[in-house]
Amino acid sequence: MSKKVAVVLAGCGVFDGAEIHESVLTLLRLDQLDAEVTCLAPNVEQMHVVNHLSGEPVEGATRNVLEEAARIARGDIQDIASANAADFDAVIVPGGFGAAKNLCTFAVDGPEMAVNPDFSAFVQSAKSVGKTIGLMCIAPAMSAKLLGAGVCCTIGNDADTAAAVEKTGARHENCAVDAIVYDEANKLVSTPAYMLAGSISEAAKGINALVDKVIEIS
Amino acid sequence: MSKKVAVVLAGCGVFDGAEIHESVLTLLRLDQLDAEVTCLAPNVEQMHVVNHLSGEPVEGATRNVLEEAARIARGDIQDIASANAADFDAVIVPGGFGAAKNLCTFAVDGPEMAVNPDFSAFVQSAKSVGKTIGLMCIAPAMSAKLLGAGVCCTIGNDADTAAAVEKTGARHENCAVDAIVYDEANKLVSTPAYMLAGSISEAAKGINALVDKVIEIS
Repeated sequence: MSKKVAVVLAGCGVFDGAEIHESVLTLLRLDQLDAEVTCLAPNVEQMHVVNHLSGEPVEGATRNVLEEAARIARGDIQDIASANAADFDAVIVPGGFGAAKNLCTFAVDGPEMAVNPDFSAFVQSAKSVGKTIGLMCIAPAMSAKLLGAGVCCTIGNDADTAAAVEKTGARHENCAVDAIVYDEANKLVSTPAYMLAGSISEAAKGINALVDKVIEIS
Repeated sequence: MSKKVAVVLAGCGVFDGAEIHESVLTLLRLDQLDAEVTCLAPNVEQMHVVNHLSGEPVEGATRNVLEEAARIARGDIQDIASANAADFDAVIVPGGFGAAKNLCTFAVDGPEMAVNPDFSAFVQSAKSVGKTIGLMCIAPAMSAKLLGAGVCCTIGNDADTAAAVEKTGARHENCAVDAIVYDEANKLVSTPAYMLAGSISEAAKGINALVDKVIEIS
């Protein structure tokens, strides 16, 4: 039977939303493995809007995370507040700054981050009923906030970011771009993706490994 | 030696810009084939902005094609007006409504479309020096406007769209989602992608075939 997987998107664009390559590579691998995918996003305003040509925030601009994430999902997406974690076998969260700006506030608050309540409730509900969680790129920075202290994850090998992640109560393991870290007790799989990848095909290797593992254990 | 390929993006999102899956799948395959990729886009306002959650145009909203396309390119993109076709071995244009709204006006004007002058000049310059052109999804609707009457292409098998394409002077061939149409005289490769694809992995089959052919003959 095909596995049901929720993919949580934090907008659309590496600097203020979900990393587009990571999101699409995730959707591709899931589809190749015959998974039944549902895209979800929180129905909130983005922390800010970044002009991806200049890299600068756009003064006064606002965009909605769910509406922008719908671009990656080709319109087929649901508000995460209305989703039931029990309906899925697994949850996967691609990275991009949106994961650290819109799903939580790690980008500005570091280890003292707040996590979006609808997203947090969904993932904690998934964990409580034994579902698999996959986090990539910067999204694993939320691991302890979502799944509790002692959880093991990776954000690649950046020492400052790893130290910030450990301050939240998580254990951090360095990880190569084409590998995964698997915390069996918490059914958590993580991979560095564009925290380390120098190219899209390099990112694809780790993302494929993560998706394969998530499907295998779900 | 690795091939140099220009990928022209018409924004970011299926309903008003470049189709995101098609764009990312193109970048992935090109990278896997060791091509050197440069993303390009016209520096113009989008025809309109569509809320991808509701599918409705957003009254009064404006977005710049180059700035939005930069989201897919992770900021690494150039204004097509400043690019020199002679610097590349091939040009590939993913689809999405942006191809028919921002690169040309096919979406509203049909066979009487106008083509963005910077984009048109770039592709015609590429053709004049014997470069390969790859067009996918709805982008092949511009084939005759870009490359001249008699050019052979596909937009899949939609009879009305095919008739409109033939009115421009192109010859249309029906094509399966995992196949390509190759016009050897014009060095033009086209594939239906999401004009026919029912899933992202189905789209990937035709896109991979197109990219493989473009690299082979460039």
